Amino acid sequence: VLRTPQRREVTLLFCDVRGSTTLSENAAPEVWVAQLNEYLTQMTLAIFSFDGYLDKFMGDGIMAVWNAFGNQPDHAELATRAGLQMFRRLEFLNKKWANMPDRTPFRIGIGLHTGEPVMGNVGSEERTQFTAIGDAVNTAARIESMCKQFGAEFIISEATAERVKELFALRELGETEVRGRAATIRIFEIVRDTAATPEGGEARDATRKEEAGEESAD
Amino acid sequence: VLRTPQRREVTLLFCDVRGSTTLSENAAPEVWVAQLNEYLTQMTLAIFSFDGYLDKFMGDGIMAVWNAFGNQPDHAELATRAGLQMFRRLEFLNKKWANMPDRTPFRIGIGLHTGEPVMGNVGSEERTQFTAIGDAVNTAARIESMCKQFGAEFIISEATAERVKELFALRELGETEVRGRAATIRIFEIVRDTAATPEGGEARDATRKEEAGEESAD
Repeated sequence: VLRTPQRREVTLLFCDVRGSTTLSENAAPEVWVAQLNEYLTQMTLAIFSFDGYLDKFMGDGIMAVWNAFGNQPDHAELATRAGLQMFRRLEFLNKKWANMPDRTPFRIGIGLHTGEPVMGNVGSEERTQFTAIGDAVNTAARIESMCKQFGAEFIISEATAERVKELFALRELGETEVRGRAATIRIFEIVRDTAATPEGGEARDATRKEEAGEESAD
Repeated sequence: VLRTPQRREVTLLFCDVRGSTTLSENAAPEVWVAQLNEYLTQMTLAIFSFDGYLDKFMGDGIMAVWNAFGNQPDHAELATRAGLQMFRRLEFLNKKWANMPDRTPFRIGIGLHTGEPVMGNVGSEERTQFTAIGDAVNTAARIESMCKQFGAEFIISEATAERVKELFALRELGETEVRGRAATIRIFEIVRDTAATPEGGEARDATRKEEAGEESAD
């Protein structure tokens, strides 16, 4: 589907596996790829459960967008709920993997940012992909990369926090510089233990279809 | 095509547009995407001219791999020649864009690294992509990101330099740290003015087919 490029308010999600480089160097290639694919399948299901657009994988990294098209005014909330479900799905995977001799537990970091990138079909004549480009994308990636520095698992920017602060328990972490920007932006951690099951959260989660596919076509 | 994941020696190419974030914030969305797609099409043609595998686009970023499959013992040379052609194609584009009021000239940085990532079909059940994963990929991306710091356009790692030092003019830039590694690696700049047309380079370039498509299928 060709869409006219447009600047839109979206919420961007980046997710990465911590220390995956070291893990991957020590694993047999077919074992590592099998574990990675099992992981990415579960994370994708969490994204689709909350109607997110899977933008791309980058190795073990994931980029997803809410309000990429259509009308999703609650994009920040949906992205946060998807992130929380990603952690829950990872807990199940890690429990399963604990009983398998050739699996290593994963730890992940998730970052969210709400901004106004350009959404459009970007690429060469032979291969275009509907994706987000611009400043907001770099900022979202940068926020995810802060997880390691702050020892946090789930960090959101001030712009996202303003839209979800009534819905989830947040802890301010401080400020961070963003490449190419003079100003710093405030970042917040989603407090998972108290925020995991707010009133209605699980119910909504459960009723959303988890079949994938429609949104994933390039 | 499903391939068994395997660790292979490959040469990885990363390429980025310098300052694209600032440029993109000032351009009309449809103008920016049109320019980006024109650029990505030309860069892809350079990659295909030297039989590279286009791994993915990341916004304006490009990741390509040589010896991703099949048998390409001269993968480091092919990747270097593709990089040189990318600069030549960009020069043509910039000349054309100079006469168009809504186009801004691009400057790019390219980084190469030769290493042994795992090549395999990575992704979720619904969407897998043949790609490179592991330490070597992070190192290649890191080397490309050194262009800005060193004021260089085309940087290659020591591992790539060892394979092409008889073929191209190199200038040692120094050493750089790579995330998650204790040791530093030496990096070299490809000196473009003297290396652009070595004996036979242009002829080989010209005889290679520039039709794309076969290698670009996900």
